[in-house]
Amino acid sequence: MTIEEMTNLLRQEIPLCEFMKLEVTSLETPSITTFAPLEPNRNMHGTGFAGALYSLAVATGWSLVHNRLSLANAEALLVVKDASIHYRRPVTGDIELRSSFKDEMEDEDLLMQLQTGGSVKFPLVITVFSKEKKCAYLEADYIAVAHK
Amino acid sequence: MTIEEMTNLLRQEIPLCEFMKLEVTSLETPSITTFAPLEPNRNMHGTGFAGALYSLAVATGWSLVHNRLSLANAEALLVVKDASIHYRRPVTGDIELRSSFKDEMEDEDLLMQLQTGGSVKFPLVITVFSKEKKCAYLEADYIAVAHK
Repeated sequence: MTIEEMTNLLRQEIPLCEFMKLEVTSLETPSITTFAPLEPNRNMHGTGFAGALYSLAVATGWSLVHNRLSLANAEALLVVKDASIHYRRPVTGDIELRSSFKDEMEDEDLLMQLQTGGSVKFPLVITVFSKEKKCAYLEADYIAVAHK
Repeated sequence: MTIEEMTNLLRQEIPLCEFMKLEVTSLETPSITTFAPLEPNRNMHGTGFAGALYSLAVATGWSLVHNRLSLANAEALLVVKDASIHYRRPVTGDIELRSSFKDEMEDEDLLMQLQTGGSVKFPLVITVFSKEKKCAYLEADYIAVAHK
């Protein structure tokens, strides 16, 4: 998928992503970067709202895995079961997010695992930056569940 | 604070809370319940978006602790450092959230701890319900940091 297609998918299908003005800025098979302005994502202190940072991060990771499944022509429902977020410093400007797979997987292996095991787990770390500083990171397990 | 005051505070100061239509439906010293309609908080499957559920939960916990600090006349900055969310079943309707303190603390003890230790930790569990079923829960550590 192109960055425009992925941005449109997120913003047309998830109202919160449209409101947060989430934009995919690069999308390769193993990695993704996204961007969002601070304004719609701020709290009462004018810094990034904890919930917005989480939402931007979880949608960024979802996009990376969704694109990976799409490249392998895998038909699966993609869900998150458990996730932990760690806030390390306030977000005081526009927001950039980055994530990449630790291990690459061949299309064949992915499809085989999905078919035989019924699901494939993608553990990801999504990092939140602002003004080029690491402000937070989300650890989330994405699970692709085979359509029955 | 009344439920109207808390709802207004959230929705006027956090743009995402306004968009999500988060509403405080009960607020007592030890417990809170909130509500949000599904529509602005949905994903592409028409169920609750993981990010929206997290955001509603983290704002609900924040409100409970903010009200507690306010009742004690404690001047403090309230932040979340680490949080984990666990999704157990899809949210298929409107959303209700509930949280309460495990332990009650006297105003005096709270103020003393804030003054001498510089911060007070409030570990909370916020539970997300839909159609009267428990769908997810957030474990978050809220930290009140004394103004210097």
